[in-house]
Amino acid sequence: MDFEFDSQTEELKASLLDFMDTHIYPAEQTFHDQLAGLDNRWAWDSVPVLAELRAEAKRRGLWNVFLPGEHTGAGSGASGSNVAGAGSGASGSNVAGAGSGASGPTRFGAGLTNLQYAPLAEITGRSIHLAPAVLNCAAPDTGNMEVLAQFGTPEQQERWLKPLLAGEIRSSFAMTEPDVASSDATNIGTRIERDGDDYVINGRKWWITGAMNPNAQVFIVMGKTDPGAERHRQQSMILVPRDAPGVEVLRGMEVFGYDDHSHGGHAELSFTDVRVPASNLIASAGDGFGIAQARLGPGRIHHCMRSIGLAERAVELMCARVSERVAFGKPLSEQGVIRDWIAESRVRIEQLRLLVLKTAWLMDTVGNRGAHTEIQAIKIATPAAVQWILDKAIQAHGAGGLSQDFPLAEAYAGIRTLRFADGPDEVHKNALARTELKRQAAARAASTAGAR
Amino acid sequence: MDFEFDSQTEELKASLLDFMDTHIYPAEQTFHDQLAGLDNRWAWDSVPVLAELRAEAKRRGLWNVFLPGEHTGAGSGASGSNVAGAGSGASGSNVAGAGSGASGPTRFGAGLTNLQYAPLAEITGRSIHLAPAVLNCAAPDTGNMEVLAQFGTPEQQERWLKPLLAGEIRSSFAMTEPDVASSDATNIGTRIERDGDDYVINGRKWWITGAMNPNAQVFIVMGKTDPGAERHRQQSMILVPRDAPGVEVLRGMEVFGYDDHSHGGHAELSFTDVRVPASNLIASAGDGFGIAQARLGPGRIHHCMRSIGLAERAVELMCARVSERVAFGKPLSEQGVIRDWIAESRVRIEQLRLLVLKTAWLMDTVGNRGAHTEIQAIKIATPAAVQWILDKAIQAHGAGGLSQDFPLAEAYAGIRTLRFADGPDEVHKNALARTELKRQAAARAASTAGAR
Amino acid sequence: MDFEFDSQTEELKASLLDFMDTHIYPAEQTFHDQLAGLDNRWAWDSVPVLAELRAEAKRRGLWNVFLPGEHTGAGSGASGSNVAGAGSGASGSNVAGAGSGASGPTRFGAGLTNLQYAPLAEITGRSIHLAPAVLNCAAPDTGNMEVLAQFGTPEQQERWLKPLLAGEIRSSFAMTEPDVASSDATNIGTRIERDGDDYVINGRKWWITGAMNPNAQVFIVMGKTDPGAERHRQQSMILVPRDAPGVEVLRGMEVFGYDDHSHGGHAELSFTDVRVPASNLIASAGDGFGIAQARLGPGRIHHCMRSIGLAERAVELMCARVSERVAFGKPLSEQGVIRDWIAESRVRIEQLRLLVLKTAWLMDTVGNRGAHTEIQAIKIATPAAVQWILDKAIQAHGAGGLSQDFPLAEAYAGIRTLRFADGPDEVHKNALARTELKRQAAARAASTAGAR
Amino acid sequence: MDFEFDSQTEELKASLLDFMDTHIYPAEQTFHDQLAGLDNRWAWDSVPVLAELRAEAKRRGLWNVFLPGEHTGAGSGASGSNVAGAGSGASGSNVAGAGSGASGPTRFGAGLTNLQYAPLAEITGRSIHLAPAVLNCAAPDTGNMEVLAQFGTPEQQERWLKPLLAGEIRSSFAMTEPDVASSDATNIGTRIERDGDDYVINGRKWWITGAMNPNAQVFIVMGKTDPGAERHRQQSMILVPRDAPGVEVLRGMEVFGYDDHSHGGHAELSFTDVRVPASNLIASAGDGFGIAQARLGPGRIHHCMRSIGLAERAVELMCARVSERVAFGKPLSEQGVIRDWIAESRVRIEQLRLLVLKTAWLMDTVGNRGAHTEIQAIKIATPAAVQWILDKAIQAHGAGGLSQDFPLAEAYAGIRTLRFADGPDEVHKNALARTELKRQAAARAASTAGAR
Repeated sequence: MDFEFDSQTEELKASLLDFMDTHIYPAEQTFHDQLAGLDNRWAWDSVPVLAELRAEAKRRGLWNVFLPGEHTGAGSGASGSNVAGAGSGASGSNVAGAGSGASGPTRFGAGLTNLQYAPLAEITGRSIHLAPAVLNCAAPDTGNMEVLAQFGTPEQQERWLKPLLAGEIRSSFAMTEPDVASSDATNIGTRIERDGDDYVINGRKWWITGAMNPNAQVFIVMGKTDPGAERHRQQSMILVPRDAPGVEVLRGMEVFGYDDHSHGGHAELSFTDVRVPASNLIASAGDGFGIAQARLGPGRIHHCMRSIGLAERAVELMCARVSERVAFGKPLSEQGVIRDWIAESRVRIEQLRLLVLKTAWLMDTVGNRGAHTEIQAIKIATPAAVQWILDKAIQAHGAGGLSQDFPLAEAYAGIRTLRFADGPDEVHKNALARTELKRQAAARAASTAGAR
Repeated sequence: MDFEFDSQTEELKASLLDFMDTHIYPAEQTFHDQLAGLDNRWAWDSVPVLAELRAEAKRRGLWNVFLPGEHTGAGSGASGSNVAGAGSGASGSNVAGAGSGASGPTRFGAGLTNLQYAPLAEITGRSIHLAPAVLNCAAPDTGNMEVLAQFGTPEQQERWLKPLLAGEIRSSFAMTEPDVASSDATNIGTRIERDGDDYVINGRKWWITGAMNPNAQVFIVMGKTDPGAERHRQQSMILVPRDAPGVEVLRGMEVFGYDDHSHGGHAELSFTDVRVPASNLIASAGDGFGIAQARLGPGRIHHCMRSIGLAERAVELMCARVSERVAFGKPLSEQGVIRDWIAESRVRIEQLRLLVLKTAWLMDTVGNRGAHTEIQAIKIATPAAVQWILDKAIQAHGAGGLSQDFPLAEAYAGIRTLRFADGPDEVHKNALARTELKRQAAARAASTAGAR
Repeated sequence: MDFEFDSQTEELKASLLDFMDTHIYPAEQTFHDQLAGLDNRWAWDSVPVLAELRAEAKRRGLWNVFLPGEHTGAGSGASGSNVAGAGSGASGSNVAGAGSGASGPTRFGAGLTNLQYAPLAEITGRSIHLAPAVLNCAAPDTGNMEVLAQFGTPEQQERWLKPLLAGEIRSSFAMTEPDVASSDATNIGTRIERDGDDYVINGRKWWITGAMNPNAQVFIVMGKTDPGAERHRQQSMILVPRDAPGVEVLRGMEVFGYDDHSHGGHAELSFTDVRVPASNLIASAGDGFGIAQARLGPGRIHHCMRSIGLAERAVELMCARVSERVAFGKPLSEQGVIRDWIAESRVRIEQLRLLVLKTAWLMDTVGNRGAHTEIQAIKIATPAAVQWILDKAIQAHGAGGLSQDFPLAEAYAGIRTLRFADGPDEVHKNALARTELKRQAAARAASTAGAR
Repeated sequence: MDFEFDSQTEELKASLLDFMDTHIYPAEQTFHDQLAGLDNRWAWDSVPVLAELRAEAKRRGLWNVFLPGEHTGAGSGASGSNVAGAGSGASGSNVAGAGSGASGPTRFGAGLTNLQYAPLAEITGRSIHLAPAVLNCAAPDTGNMEVLAQFGTPEQQERWLKPLLAGEIRSSFAMTEPDVASSDATNIGTRIERDGDDYVINGRKWWITGAMNPNAQVFIVMGKTDPGAERHRQQSMILVPRDAPGVEVLRGMEVFGYDDHSHGGHAELSFTDVRVPASNLIASAGDGFGIAQARLGPGRIHHCMRSIGLAERAVELMCARVSERVAFGKPLSEQGVIRDWIAESRVRIEQLRLLVLKTAWLMDTVGNRGAHTEIQAIKIATPAAVQWILDKAIQAHGAGGLSQDFPLAEAYAGIRTLRFADGPDEVHKNALARTELKRQAAARAASTAGAR
């Protein structure tokens, strides 16, 4: 057991920290100003400063660092020979070429393990509006790229993965529906029906993050191809171009009062007799649920580590604020209740980070399936801890903490959504407890058998 | 001891409930649509439907019901002979006339006690954007009208109280400052300096609710007239017309992304050499802190009861939602965790309401000073309980609960601000504990004395 | 609405407070010393000081004050003509005689309403080991006496109620069983089978409070007379003398490390072919569940109010302790975190007490059934709040708070059991939520109907 | 970064797990029965089964495994050349001989690192009454042996450490005092005064764990040698034989009704003119505070890991119980609220364990000082998490969970004391927050400097 990062990770961390200090933080205000000047408020990835920063990220080898290399873990569940590999990661533009003439598999990404990428994700979380996008490591594109890298056909990869890895286009992942409790996948109402060489899609989705951005050119849509099949074989995923006839972007959902246009909002979409070629299906019919599960693991790590970065920034802001404010004759930093918040925040962050890192390590060593319980555990633990910390940081700021003058309220809103994302906490707790009960029952049975 | 409302209160409740059902709820969408159509988004009280509803409220005797009658409680602290009474309350336009020819004091408002008004405030809290304004019972005007009724000169009442009671203009209360922890009144930086027959005001304020509305024609400004005086005699309050030279409305503060334009937002204001006649001072120089304290009591009751109304609506929404949503084979309403939330919500609301009502009763019977601990207690208890309930109601709604489709997230944002309003919870807890410690020490001393 | 107690209650409070100061508190140590000197540690009600104090309580009219008078509430559910009335209550020995020659019903107890008795119960809770017993107002006898007064035959009353009211014997209530989740009454395994003129009882019970005391001469045993009947008509209650052949007292259960011998412990009992006359059945076969429900209401009020008394004493001890201890240069009472505890304690107690008092008032005015939700609510709210307060009071005392030097740890243990008593909190929350869901559904239905 | 234990640790874990299954668990009842049969209830280490089990533990190399080997970490703070090393650890009787003729330092213990011992401590925590004692790894002897190994003179080691390592005698650590808040070391009232070749000790101590056991033959007493010295140089530690004239064992303190005689109770002691040779002083006069700090680190790891073992056992018991109990038609294990508890318990344990392990690793690699914040953090985090879990496990058991039939209530009592042990949580939180505030201030200063 060893709690130090390897030297490659430490180097990348140092590089990224330097990049944050020298480029990202100084550009935050510029980004917001340019964003405010857009004709289409949703076209966030068209602001000039982003392009400049991305060029620098590529130059520093910090581009696409989220994307793992070849999956070697025992239980990784990675099936396809086409999911592997990673080049220098320095430039998206040579991704396709990386393996083109070689006999081996096509290689994407930087080839980092989850455990190596995790601390980088934490750092990007400190500048949540800007850093992930600059590194091309922003959700939901990361998960979509993983799906395409792992399950996409060469044609799908050529058409969609390549420009995504190059940061030329954006994508969305359309699963949640307004009319049902989407945490239960059997509730999904969208239909994907075969009709000759095409599939025809009908349904309604909401909370489709990034989809208000006109440059989100493709949606991965989850729907049912066979409602009569076994519970987890009813669903499929299919690629739907934004401009396909019958696709309608209805409105942007708001979170608290934020429309989140700085990362493309959350759209409500309708699909009315949308027709796409059958070759747009990802993997096979009935694979939708399985792909969704595979997609979750790494994304969970990213989300959680970025949230921890946010929590660290909140603690920084809280410490700074209470050190400078005076009330009733002494700085707030000397008030016992405030100190209690700071101590609790530190204690919670330290515990949480270790659990997320261990989960990343498990995913690297025994695969997503072997890390299943931990992947659920970090989903449960992260928003609870970080929300608590943000609440205290806000309180320590007085009313200003709720306003546009500090990033805390918006961060709170974002973290609050994580208690629903990929299903509400309650569903995950229920499932985790079921696993624990089974495990304990098996242990009791073994112990009884041993005693005989 | 008796837990039933008196018959007048029951009649008013019935009347108001009917008004809500027949007029307010049906008009909510109209109000929002008309609001969206305004040229100046902040001029919320200019929307046509409001005028119609107000006419009906007056017709029903539901106008200005917040304003108490003559203060008869032993320790009410009400000094002025001009604070008394109440006529029919049916129409604001005859308010000034009510006592004009009479030998007795001028009478304002409906003459309800705090305990009688409290359940009405709860009901208006269920339609927080519309109902309080329709009844002319919305903050911060209510508190400002109380101040003018209790401490204003006849000239101040004629110029400002009369149109406020008539609903013709709006007002703001300018106390909080951006540069200091305002919960400590000695921190206040704004200066109100005598210069001949005038006072000259310099300072900066923020979170001045309602002040973005151009019809908020007057601000009650808190500042220091004598920084060298005893701790609680440094501050004064003064009336500043919106159009006085040197007053600048800088921007609207946002709360979790909401600008709260539907009730005039929260402005940042600067006062630069603003000159007003000395007669604009409320009561005497040095009275500012005392007036602020007096202003707090009834406002606290209003806020807390409206918050309880909000909590009740949240429970309704939660119950409705979980009854109709199905996941994993059964309605959410049959999930144990959801039921736990509902039960806890009910248990918390019942306790909280009783404490607020008892506080109102104490204010009516022994005055604000005698109810001091309870007034602090409800400030501490209310936002904590209601925020918890709203959080669970949101969670029960899934992601929709955070969006514009339900009133829950906006309600959460509003309630969250109450943890700062009139000083953060922590300041109130500290003070309440100090009182408790003193009380207990006195009891121990008495007991020891008795034992001798 | 009025939050003052009536004058009779205020007089009784004053009388009881005086009795506490002059007699009870000074006798606490004597009681414990005499208790320690007993040959049979369980025979707690044989200590001499108790008899002296009881005589004084009777003299002051503070004897049997728990027992209500005639039930006049609309929905009280009191069926029997023999449940009514109350004499002077000054002496148990003339209870039976009170109504003997009169044409009216037999009258027991002091005739106080639940609302009148409630504040007295709070006061006795401050000296939980001694005061309730001195006033003959200690559980489980109170509940048993109510059952006998309300549902007993004249013969049962003569044989058991009379000596109980006189404080000559004690009793226990035997419902909970070791082998099943007893919160579900259908789980009860004890059988009460008719055999000729007798009933024969077989079963095992535990946590039978008071039953280790050899003077607990009678047990009210809950068991099934008809396991095939409708869910809530399977159970009956029957009077079993302690000395009936087949009754075995197996052991005393401990709570944390306390055996609670100062009020008769908590016995595990077995009943093997125990034969009693059929006339020992209380009310009719199948009435057991109904009687249990009726028994709960007043007992809930008593428990909750006594718990509040305990909480008040804990706050006193906490305030005293933190005022005298110094650490890191200032008294603990000036530490912000400690003040937070004190303030929270006060805020919680105030809310809780009001809810319990309102529940008592409801029981008096609309009966147990009409107060059903509130009776559940106080069961949920009380142990949670008081346990929290005790935990903080302990923490403020340092390790001493957990020891025999202060009453806090033992109080904590006692309050902790309330989270199970009459069924665990979770069962009550579930039931309360079901009621709320039904109520809300009915309101929605009515509203929809009204809209048509 | 790597989350796997090394192979030596895995082997020891396997060996210990086997020992638990084959020897410890089966002997638990025997231990309690023999304990109940003792003439002196406090002489727990005289029960026969303990000697048998200890022989087996030695045979298996599981004796004294707590004691680290040579300190090699950069900042370990271990000063003495006599603190080092470790032999086979198989037998305490050859400890002194191990290095006697050798040129190297004397070697004690098994030579495990903190990180290697930590998972073993967790396992022993599952049988908290028996396993730590069997391995001679029970507090407070472990800490005392560390002090003697690290700071003791050869004579002190020969006289006290040798028989302690051999398990022949026991010891206590006497720091806490009844009259002051002992978390502030400057409050300590006990005096250790030089008088010729002796020191004379006067003072009173309580909560001296193990000291009721007559075989606790030596006490390490903390007192002031120089009340006028600098804050942390006033205190010294001195060895006081139990039989020194003037030492009086006054009584055993109870924790929630438990006297904890199974590990020697918690004594109140008085020292009246107790005279011991000056050579009994540990290290130098004024070193007391520093030694206390050094003593804390490893003990903290032990306590926390054992507490985690306890928490794991509680989860096991909870899972077993809810799987077998049925209420309202389904096993408790299918109730949502119960599942929530199980999931939360798992999530909290996983986080907590990682933090404790990381702390152990830090102590091994950068020393106690470098691990200071983490050592505080686990002190804060552990009792809070484990107490929560125990509370839920108790609740899941119904009233039985509070009784002597399950180990949960006693475990709860034990864990509850940890919130005071080595100072209350609040003191540690305050200190941790101060460190965080300083760290953040330094970072802001550095950042500002960098920006210039």
